[in-house]
Amino acid sequence: MHNKVFPQSLSANEVLEQFHRSRKYSTDLIVGLSAEDCQAQSMEDASPAKWHLAHVTWFYEVMVLKAFEDNFSFWNPEFAVLFNSYYNGIGDKHPRSKRGLLTRPSLAEVLEWRKNIEDRVCKLIKAKNSPELLWLIQVGINHEQQHQELLLTDLHHLFSNNSLFPVYSSLVKNISTAVAPFQWVEGMSGLVETGYEGEQFHFDNEGPKHQAFNQIHSIGNRLVSNAEWLQFIEDGGYQNFQWWLDAGWAWLQSEQISAPLYWNKEGQDQLLRFSLNGNLPLDLYAPVSNISYFEADAFARWASQNLSGFAGARLPTEFEWEAFARLNPESSNDLFGKVWQWTSSNYNPYPGYQPWGGIAGEYNGKFMVNQMVLRGSSEYTPSDHSRISYRNFFPTHARWQMTGLRLAKDGL
Amino acid sequence: MHNKVFPQSLSANEVLEQFHRSRKYSTDLIVGLSAEDCQAQSMEDASPAKWHLAHVTWFYEVMVLKAFEDNFSFWNPEFAVLFNSYYNGIGDKHPRSKRGLLTRPSLAEVLEWRKNIEDRVCKLIKAKNSPELLWLIQVGINHEQQHQELLLTDLHHLFSNNSLFPVYSSLVKNISTAVAPFQWVEGMSGLVETGYEGEQFHFDNEGPKHQAFNQIHSIGNRLVSNAEWLQFIEDGGYQNFQWWLDAGWAWLQSEQISAPLYWNKEGQDQLLRFSLNGNLPLDLYAPVSNISYFEADAFARWASQNLSGFAGARLPTEFEWEAFARLNPESSNDLFGKVWQWTSSNYNPYPGYQPWGGIAGEYNGKFMVNQMVLRGSSEYTPSDHSRISYRNFFPTHARWQMTGLRLAKDGL
Amino acid sequence: MHNKVFPQSLSANEVLEQFHRSRKYSTDLIVGLSAEDCQAQSMEDASPAKWHLAHVTWFYEVMVLKAFEDNFSFWNPEFAVLFNSYYNGIGDKHPRSKRGLLTRPSLAEVLEWRKNIEDRVCKLIKAKNSPELLWLIQVGINHEQQHQELLLTDLHHLFSNNSLFPVYSSLVKNISTAVAPFQWVEGMSGLVETGYEGEQFHFDNEGPKHQAFNQIHSIGNRLVSNAEWLQFIEDGGYQNFQWWLDAGWAWLQSEQISAPLYWNKEGQDQLLRFSLNGNLPLDLYAPVSNISYFEADAFARWASQNLSGFAGARLPTEFEWEAFARLNPESSNDLFGKVWQWTSSNYNPYPGYQPWGGIAGEYNGKFMVNQMVLRGSSEYTPSDHSRISYRNFFPTHARWQMTGLRLAKDGL
Amino acid sequence: MHNKVFPQSLSANEVLEQFHRSRKYSTDLIVGLSAEDCQAQSMEDASPAKWHLAHVTWFYEVMVLKAFEDNFSFWNPEFAVLFNSYYNGIGDKHPRSKRGLLTRPSLAEVLEWRKNIEDRVCKLIKAKNSPELLWLIQVGINHEQQHQELLLTDLHHLFSNNSLFPVYSSLVKNISTAVAPFQWVEGMSGLVETGYEGEQFHFDNEGPKHQAFNQIHSIGNRLVSNAEWLQFIEDGGYQNFQWWLDAGWAWLQSEQISAPLYWNKEGQDQLLRFSLNGNLPLDLYAPVSNISYFEADAFARWASQNLSGFAGARLPTEFEWEAFARLNPESSNDLFGKVWQWTSSNYNPYPGYQPWGGIAGEYNGKFMVNQMVLRGSSEYTPSDHSRISYRNFFPTHARWQMTGLRLAKDGL
Repeated sequence: MHNKVFPQSLSANEVLEQFHRSRKYSTDLIVGLSAEDCQAQSMEDASPAKWHLAHVTWFYEVMVLKAFEDNFSFWNPEFAVLFNSYYNGIGDKHPRSKRGLLTRPSLAEVLEWRKNIEDRVCKLIKAKNSPELLWLIQVGINHEQQHQELLLTDLHHLFSNNSLFPVYSSLVKNISTAVAPFQWVEGMSGLVETGYEGEQFHFDNEGPKHQAFNQIHSIGNRLVSNAEWLQFIEDGGYQNFQWWLDAGWAWLQSEQISAPLYWNKEGQDQLLRFSLNGNLPLDLYAPVSNISYFEADAFARWASQNLSGFAGARLPTEFEWEAFARLNPESSNDLFGKVWQWTSSNYNPYPGYQPWGGIAGEYNGKFMVNQMVLRGSSEYTPSDHSRISYRNFFPTHARWQMTGLRLAKDGL
Repeated sequence: MHNKVFPQSLSANEVLEQFHRSRKYSTDLIVGLSAEDCQAQSMEDASPAKWHLAHVTWFYEVMVLKAFEDNFSFWNPEFAVLFNSYYNGIGDKHPRSKRGLLTRPSLAEVLEWRKNIEDRVCKLIKAKNSPELLWLIQVGINHEQQHQELLLTDLHHLFSNNSLFPVYSSLVKNISTAVAPFQWVEGMSGLVETGYEGEQFHFDNEGPKHQAFNQIHSIGNRLVSNAEWLQFIEDGGYQNFQWWLDAGWAWLQSEQISAPLYWNKEGQDQLLRFSLNGNLPLDLYAPVSNISYFEADAFARWASQNLSGFAGARLPTEFEWEAFARLNPESSNDLFGKVWQWTSSNYNPYPGYQPWGGIAGEYNGKFMVNQMVLRGSSEYTPSDHSRISYRNFFPTHARWQMTGLRLAKDGL
Repeated sequence: MHNKVFPQSLSANEVLEQFHRSRKYSTDLIVGLSAEDCQAQSMEDASPAKWHLAHVTWFYEVMVLKAFEDNFSFWNPEFAVLFNSYYNGIGDKHPRSKRGLLTRPSLAEVLEWRKNIEDRVCKLIKAKNSPELLWLIQVGINHEQQHQELLLTDLHHLFSNNSLFPVYSSLVKNISTAVAPFQWVEGMSGLVETGYEGEQFHFDNEGPKHQAFNQIHSIGNRLVSNAEWLQFIEDGGYQNFQWWLDAGWAWLQSEQISAPLYWNKEGQDQLLRFSLNGNLPLDLYAPVSNISYFEADAFARWASQNLSGFAGARLPTEFEWEAFARLNPESSNDLFGKVWQWTSSNYNPYPGYQPWGGIAGEYNGKFMVNQMVLRGSSEYTPSDHSRISYRNFFPTHARWQMTGLRLAKDGL
Repeated sequence: MHNKVFPQSLSANEVLEQFHRSRKYSTDLIVGLSAEDCQAQSMEDASPAKWHLAHVTWFYEVMVLKAFEDNFSFWNPEFAVLFNSYYNGIGDKHPRSKRGLLTRPSLAEVLEWRKNIEDRVCKLIKAKNSPELLWLIQVGINHEQQHQELLLTDLHHLFSNNSLFPVYSSLVKNISTAVAPFQWVEGMSGLVETGYEGEQFHFDNEGPKHQAFNQIHSIGNRLVSNAEWLQFIEDGGYQNFQWWLDAGWAWLQSEQISAPLYWNKEGQDQLLRFSLNGNLPLDLYAPVSNISYFEADAFARWASQNLSGFAGARLPTEFEWEAFARLNPESSNDLFGKVWQWTSSNYNPYPGYQPWGGIAGEYNGKFMVNQMVLRGSSEYTPSDHSRISYRNFFPTHARWQMTGLRLAKDGL
């Protein structure tokens, strides 16, 4: 690591406590899953649960122990290849599309490895008084939290490929019975402070803090609901090219898309949505989820012309979103914990952006092209992994993540 | 089933005994494998071990119990979809490429289902005195035996994708220290009887018995060895278009083929071959294995011009092979139990061929195009599943099966 | 060339006369076509007319002049690359899929080159008294004739991609008003002489003459008609898996095939077929054309069970076809000049087959895999290019050639 | 058209004169090309010259004459399908990948059609006094100018596929002998006016005029040269992942990219670049051209660390570029007429963007995703088609256009 300064707001004990909590949460997530459930990979974009559990451990072994532990040696040097995700700086990688073929090491062996690495990291935290080490552990914690969300979204996708419709959790949530009335809220315009600055942990892509310029605009007080989306479908939204970007229209036709991912039907009429709670009746008042950027963008264009009260609707920029969140931090506005919210902002470096030093430099920066920013967080996001400055990102066709939308418009 | 006559050489008790033996052998094969090992699918052509275990059970449930059991009901009606391989007559199928995504039912549940179906089939055999039933059970036994071989070849392929090189069985065979001197043996020419006729169980594609016409020819007394194949490689055989069929040359280039599947190197020099016993030094005197038809054909053309004593070498027809096997049934000629032997015969129906009646009619006939016949059997073939009239078949590029070659030539 | 003996039935003057005739016919074929028409390539399998005209000239330059002409030099050495089809022995090739990009040399330049090579070949024939040369010229003539047929089939395909439906020839043939009553004719069974032997020109794949064994069988007196095919369609033939080989069913679904190539509709009802004469009402009594092997095979299976008088219908073997043709050489049986006739025979070498020597060795032999034999000839075949022993071949999905079928059955 | 106001700075006579000039320039461009040259299509992204000539005429017929001409009728109604590019609002389209198959209508017929439409448009301009008509004609003129550039870039690409290396124009330019010394110029920071406002013709994507916020930055006084690019290559720039975006690295490897498009070698050493003037020695002092966004971005990252005087180099935003151009409008800074300049700005709508009304609404807006903005113009751009506010756009892998780069950096 070549960063000169490591922002630090936590003591070693606090980091240690966070570390334990995040490690435990990972294994909590697979309670109720079989080794087989943790083995399978449903598509190249997704990874097996076992791979997620192993990869976050690989991160500590290669990024932390290898750099800081005396007399370091690998638990198994082959694991450095098998569980490398995308770090060219570290060397060979097992092919991404073949993660589901790694039946060895077994889940039990991965858990044993996890335990070993965990213990060694703990020892290290207690033994070394290094701001860089504490910072790196926090990278590891946040990295593991990101994979906790991915583990759930990938499992959701995997189970959706099985006509038995497996239920991950039978703690079925209540169906919503209402949704807040939609209102336009005045957005913060002019030069607005954007990006993280402070001593708390944050990713390199959240900074540097800088000024962005917002036009005069309004923003929606809540997320778009399934009921509103259903109107879009019933109005032929997926059959009318005029709402769609050209690339979106081509995508829709080649993939034969006509509804959000995971929507399905029982018989002729009953609309269902497959979730980790099973294949349940569609909750009309819940926020729409698992839509692509193309769909979010098309919906906004349609709503602008067809939905009463939505004239001028478009997606917000990430700067509009962030300014809104700073002014309205309460959850009453669906900012966090429901669905990620597509913005019209491309995932670009902020002015003056510098990737982290060393091999962590491949963490974010190299993905800053051909992706759109999503803001907020979803119901799958670990509870302490949400931030106003947080930037999630996916390509315009992706929709296996918990992705929805909030609308904005020019003017007041 | 609409067959009028069901050839029968076995009593109900004998069938029952065979049934038990074949069912037990399937579960014997997965001793030492984890549920994860049985879950993964390495490519569309291959299937997970769990799927093989389930599919052969599906066959009994759908083809036997459903037709013969009083008050039949499905263990789980969804399984009829999940574990259907290619029977359009039965209805929907889970997509072949997604068999590895079926983490549910678990291996334990599949084994429980196996037990249930097994018990019901036993009861049926004891209760009903029906030649058709006994014949169908034998179809089921032979079907399961085919999948036992596939289970091993698919596992071999799966494990080869893991750089940990898992060992399925540590019962390492001795390395061969010699190979029999090669000799041309006079083949049987003129009109020769071909195909099965009799009361023993056989597949529809082995009949009807008929006359085929063999030219005057000779045939090799043994299989081509790894040592001979190595000469082909060292002479630049994979780099010289003149030995190759045009489609083979294109295949070789697009797939970047330069040796049989599973050959690899340790350092610069040590040749290894990955097998179910691990990644071991290449056994030079063992028969070459895991080669495509394209490679077998190219080798013969090369050997004909470059290998002393092999002038005129070509692949045998399946009729030459069968006539040779009838005259030389001892195993001293490598007929059975080593590798399947590519022939130059296309997998076509014999004159007067009639597929089995009913849904079993999809068993063989519909695959009779764009495939080549292989004769003999391999070390992965269950011991009582070899027959002189047996016709195996694969497309010209396939090589994840245990496939090798025996040479022939025109004249004496 | 390393052939020892060059079969020769023609004098130098006769060869010269044939040479002139074949060269003139090529340029006759493009009368009425623009340089643009001769430029375009509709798919990788097809070639532009200009390319055909150039390639057959390339053949004379590289195969004949280079070997026999004193002080030979290339008209343009780059042409040896641009117009090489598939001869690896000669060196580099312009990519097959990009033949339509060769706007230079222009058609006029190709014709000028043609003239130059033609004159030099004439001079050579007159000057040299060499059986090998005369034989090679005949290879060149027959080669050009093959490309004359391809030029028409490729043009047919090209024009079918243009919604203007260009008319190549307005010499519209009369619509047939009847078809001969269908009859089964007894085929020649037992050991039958097959393959060419004699002094006339023939391709290497037509020999050596040998004995093949025919089962007792019957063969149809005429080709299957469009009217009969229409019954297949109307009976849901393209929607019922039971008639189709597994690979054919997959092909049909992925390509969305529901009728022979070039069939189309005007409004709801009027069936049309696009031909080089334009887009005309379907001639019900004409032989069906432009069907794949998969379709021919499925039709036979359907007809066997559904068409009165066709019980037992299947495709003939090429040996049955040849024996029939030897006994019934008159055209009254639709043997030649209508459509090529799919057989159930794979395109394999005859016993004892030896490819021609030298670079001509790549002419036929290397294609002997994964293709089916077609016999007869089509309306696009040059008039003196039909032979009873002639073997045409295409893969099972190809249907842009003039391909139809004649039925056979076991027994009498 | 539903636009209420049609910005107009030109009289009918001036529009008429521009119309004539632009039409003539199109046909000037194909002087020296054969009908064959105008026929071929080298890839899906490119179109045949004939198609370009036809499509711009289609635009006048469908967008202008159909709306304004009394007693309008189509020259040929099929042309409305054949030469529609991407206007879903107009109806069917001939498939983009098959434009090279339209050998009919011939080039001569297209030119005749052009003449007819041209005459009718002239008559219309003279007869009707309509601001909307005059504005629409200017859309047509600018549209034709865009296709004039495409015609040249597509021809360039087509000819590069021919190993004869055809020369379009033998008016060889002199090789440059020097390049201006590189200097950082202070950019305009803070809120800057961006976008077109005025009465001159401009595309909808250039407006509305609005304020953008520029960070403090510097910008290069000239374009990056071939000599500088050569240093990048010689330093292993194409082999080192650290300079590349992840998607760029994957693209580079799958496409086997190691130099700008059109660079090639004669023998071991002589570097050549294929251009419309032929395959000529690389001009080291000319601006690098035919690079993708991925390459431009990687070069900047490499130059920032390796090229003396280039520390901090990155691509400029389109707003930085525009501000620079407004302050430095002289061509001495390589702004126009050399190569298009990649910016780091995504092709997004400006705040308050409204697409044109009616079918022209599909002109620009629907492409605003997954593309990057390029500014300036190239040597292929028609002379009166450059503007400071002009926004060109291509996806990140495209490089058959005349695309180069200018560098910027944060700070002064």
